[in-house]
Amino acid sequence: MSLYDAMFSQYGVKIAQVLVTKADFYNEETRRNLISTLSELISLNIVPIINTNDAVSPPPQVDEPIGAKPGKRGISLKDNDSLAAMLAAEVQSDLLILMSDVDGIYNKPPWEPGARFLHTFSSEQRQTIEFGQKSKVGTGGMDSKVNSAIWALDRGVSVVICNGMAKEAIKTILSGRKIGTFFTDSAVVGAVPTEIIAENARIGGRLLQTLTPDQRALCVHTLADLLVSKQSQILDANQKDLQEASSSGVAKPLLSRLSLTPSKLKNLAHGLKQIADSSHKNVGRVLRRTRLAEGLELKQITVPIGVLLVIFESRPDSLPQVAALAIASGNGLLLKGGKEAAHSNRALMELVKESLATIGATDAISLISTREEIADLLTMEQHIDLIIPRGSSDLVRSIQQQSQHIPVLGHAEGICHVFVDKDADLKKALKIIRDAKCDYPAACNAMETLLIHEDLMNTNFFMDVCDMLKKEGVKINSGPILNQMLTFAPRVAKSLKHEYGSLECCIEVVKGIDEAIDHIHNYGSGHTDVIVTENNNRAEDFQKKVDSACVFHNASSRFADGFRFGLGAEVGISTARIHARGPVGVEGLLTTKWVLDGVDHAAADFSEEGGRQWIHESLPVN
Amino acid sequence: MSLYDAMFSQYGVKIAQVLVTKADFYNEETRRNLISTLSELISLNIVPIINTNDAVSPPPQVDEPIGAKPGKRGISLKDNDSLAAMLAAEVQSDLLILMSDVDGIYNKPPWEPGARFLHTFSSEQRQTIEFGQKSKVGTGGMDSKVNSAIWALDRGVSVVICNGMAKEAIKTILSGRKIGTFFTDSAVVGAVPTEIIAENARIGGRLLQTLTPDQRALCVHTLADLLVSKQSQILDANQKDLQEASSSGVAKPLLSRLSLTPSKLKNLAHGLKQIADSSHKNVGRVLRRTRLAEGLELKQITVPIGVLLVIFESRPDSLPQVAALAIASGNGLLLKGGKEAAHSNRALMELVKESLATIGATDAISLISTREEIADLLTMEQHIDLIIPRGSSDLVRSIQQQSQHIPVLGHAEGICHVFVDKDADLKKALKIIRDAKCDYPAACNAMETLLIHEDLMNTNFFMDVCDMLKKEGVKINSGPILNQMLTFAPRVAKSLKHEYGSLECCIEVVKGIDEAIDHIHNYGSGHTDVIVTENNNRAEDFQKKVDSACVFHNASSRFADGFRFGLGAEVGISTARIHARGPVGVEGLLTTKWVLDGVDHAAADFSEEGGRQWIHESLPVN
Repeated sequence: MSLYDAMFSQYGVKIAQVLVTKADFYNEETRRNLISTLSELISLNIVPIINTNDAVSPPPQVDEPIGAKPGKRGISLKDNDSLAAMLAAEVQSDLLILMSDVDGIYNKPPWEPGARFLHTFSSEQRQTIEFGQKSKVGTGGMDSKVNSAIWALDRGVSVVICNGMAKEAIKTILSGRKIGTFFTDSAVVGAVPTEIIAENARIGGRLLQTLTPDQRALCVHTLADLLVSKQSQILDANQKDLQEASSSGVAKPLLSRLSLTPSKLKNLAHGLKQIADSSHKNVGRVLRRTRLAEGLELKQITVPIGVLLVIFESRPDSLPQVAALAIASGNGLLLKGGKEAAHSNRALMELVKESLATIGATDAISLISTREEIADLLTMEQHIDLIIPRGSSDLVRSIQQQSQHIPVLGHAEGICHVFVDKDADLKKALKIIRDAKCDYPAACNAMETLLIHEDLMNTNFFMDVCDMLKKEGVKINSGPILNQMLTFAPRVAKSLKHEYGSLECCIEVVKGIDEAIDHIHNYGSGHTDVIVTENNNRAEDFQKKVDSACVFHNASSRFADGFRFGLGAEVGISTARIHARGPVGVEGLLTTKWVLDGVDHAAADFSEEGGRQWIHESLPVN
Repeated sequence: MSLYDAMFSQYGVKIAQVLVTKADFYNEETRRNLISTLSELISLNIVPIINTNDAVSPPPQVDEPIGAKPGKRGISLKDNDSLAAMLAAEVQSDLLILMSDVDGIYNKPPWEPGARFLHTFSSEQRQTIEFGQKSKVGTGGMDSKVNSAIWALDRGVSVVICNGMAKEAIKTILSGRKIGTFFTDSAVVGAVPTEIIAENARIGGRLLQTLTPDQRALCVHTLADLLVSKQSQILDANQKDLQEASSSGVAKPLLSRLSLTPSKLKNLAHGLKQIADSSHKNVGRVLRRTRLAEGLELKQITVPIGVLLVIFESRPDSLPQVAALAIASGNGLLLKGGKEAAHSNRALMELVKESLATIGATDAISLISTREEIADLLTMEQHIDLIIPRGSSDLVRSIQQQSQHIPVLGHAEGICHVFVDKDADLKKALKIIRDAKCDYPAACNAMETLLIHEDLMNTNFFMDVCDMLKKEGVKINSGPILNQMLTFAPRVAKSLKHEYGSLECCIEVVKGIDEAIDHIHNYGSGHTDVIVTENNNRAEDFQKKVDSACVFHNASSRFADGFRFGLGAEVGISTARIHARGPVGVEGLLTTKWVLDGVDHAAADFSEEGGRQWIHESLPVN
């Protein structure tokens, strides 16, 4: 107590010691006295420090079960945790904080595979949690804390179990930030735990996979039809989003992206029908057939990846598109849309569920509503196979950084270059540069840096380019070399590795193709790079050496796009080097599986005594 | 001082205050006195607490540069850090520890992209580090700490800068574990920083990529020839490893894996020549050709992934194999071998470098020698594109867990099932089970769990299987259902999700194919699963529904192998779902790139006013 006194007095807080015994809670008079003492102390701004009165209480019996006994009003007072829980329930406190030397609780013993830290715990989850052996510290271990917390929760008191050594733990809790495990039955916590939603997507995806391509296509057609027949319902929901957005002063371009119209829905339905029609050869396609030996035939076939997590911003039309792609490719799907489109997304999701119900796979696709759930999902590598963020570079970058073990398909940056070689047709060059920069400057495949061969600096070309860009309203920055060459140069670019994403670009001078390639490797993002030249050997050299997803000759960088590449619906553009690179169509949602048919084949048959021989004959796939 | 005194006295340590001024270091007499005072105190086990004598020293001038001035012997005493550095140099201390409220230093300001924590810092690295603005705490900020540390390092004193709030920081430092940044010029730290080695692999890989397939093949042939012509040199090195291993009491199987022989080398050379010969169509293969529009043709071609990090255990023969695969596929490569094969690996690496030198790409492949370097490399997602751990499940699992943003190709577990359907030919079943479990029990594709249709429990089959397994020396565990069925059952398996990896397995009874599939999904690892049945429809159903990399019918699980699948050299077996799945051949080291050739094509040409039309015609790839 003297230590408590010394420490609290540093903050100018007065304390009072209160000692209780179990009996004090059962005897109506002592109980009343206790509660009024506590209320009085609190009203006087005195913090009661409560403990069991060990001098007069018998030690608790270790094997006495925790929990209410019939005819008794409390839990047995085995330790400070149960004492705290009982007191919290008695005074109906707003929050009970139980401090431990561990960070909180996990869904299973933390040393077991698949153990996941629980930020929130609702009493429904009780069955899904396995607790480990009691920790060595005995009755003060986690079991007792958790039982006390649940006991208090059942009596309407929210509880946080956290690590008392964490910096400013109490302040962090009171500011509402995530620390420890929050025991609550508040409705904010989704009724279905995120992990269950993810598991259902796996099961639903497996079900989709076993259907025939026709059944999957039919489901997408159903969804397309619903978009038209339930149009008014969708537009009503969208109207709510638009009202909320405009009343909170959202910018015009965002509003137009958020808005749905009958014609947008019609086009969307049309696009979905195309996805359905072209889906028949996605799953189950034979990529390779090999006769390994007499009677032993191997096939490599395409199958869905499994469970996708797609995170998209504002545009609600992404939802049915992505859902259709997932259904057509037999993948389970978790979707997270932007907050600003919440009403529209919910309405669209209902239609997705309705169409999935026709094939009995309702759970294959679910909508995730909170950011906390996303953070949880990003750690569930056992449930999620691929993450696709669709939106701003910031979104992609943040998802890439947060996801530590689940692959992320996408690109955080699109720093695309156009290199104008000395042998370029300068008219073509001007045309390609204009298109690459000005056709849609916000796109990831727009040009950010123009590289000009130094020989062209003696011609009119540089001035022509600058005039053209100026006319188009493009702000020019210069690279350090260009800047040194000119008497009056545009301001020096802050960084050569920068995505302007607007009517602005950088111009730099290079000595030749090799310097251009080095520049691209040093400052580019491996997205799309272009050479303009009439020298085909040099173009080939450039296309061979530039290590980017897309390398173009005499064509605008704006062609780097799934639709323009003829891939159908675009899943995204990837600058990763494995799985899928560049514009990705529905093929990016597929993987393969090896199917082997034998008679009674054993590996030992192929040993020297086994008598069977390898053939390894490649067979036609059709 | 009273606080210091109170705290040190808790540990029974006596302290003494020593106050100094800058002048005390310049005046030869005071300097001598100071040093002997300090020596005397230390010899008496008294810890000197040293500070500037602020009562008599003028405050330091803020703009006075840190660093030795001509004619002066020390650095200016601006703060405790410079004081500490000067004292450490004066007494030639073994280690100077500078404590801060940050963890140590980074290669660039920690909030910038690509900032990497530096565990070690050698004075050669000085140029490669950018320091940020002085932190708000003024002269006590990191700049001053780093300058003082470098100053001391230049005078032969090693320094650790660490977070003083870290738990038991001093004990951790003294036990030699990694905490904070260690400033040292000791030779233990590789001459070339890991990051530079990785960057060189990228540059070297890009160079390999620009060579012709013939040049790459020739380089592999050169390496193959060197393995034979420099045989004695390799065997000498290997002898040293074997001696060290046997003197440290290494087990026999490990010794045999470690040992190289003339015939092993000959076979190895033969294998390398096969890799060279079959490499011509790896890189630059056209996978897809599309005419997007008149004069605009798109090609998707295979290209190397970039830079691979391959981590392998004991077998030194892996080194030339993996190097040959990387060269043949045009990838840069970083290799980390087992410590026990250090001599052999170095000798083999010399030959790899010798063969790379013939094509001018010496730096494309490098050997990494310390585990610390691996930890560094696992965070360098900008330099490394794919990690391939080849070795035990523990190795793979640990690498998978450590690598947060670089994909890892491999499998941590191989929990393979054989399901014997009620319509199985029981003789075939016995043969396949024996092969799947006993042919090579340590392999990842060996059977771990046998699932038996319940109808077969009324036949002799169960006893026949048990007799056969017993005869082969296989220890049997039973699943919970089998255990309940039998009066005298084998002991219950501790877990149904377990890889025995030895002559041991689990047997469980299932009601039918659906329960078998559920069991496999719940407890399997997605590696290889087998059905034995004469009912082809049921086999097809099983192959469709089981969500594993390999699903076999009437064939042993042991066929899941790159060579047996006819893929040539095996890179690994992957249970991941993206990029490559199942046994992976050299194709797993490749990705694709999109190459577009146009005339002057702009995206705007395809708008309504543009006048150009999409064709999207698929062209033959040959």
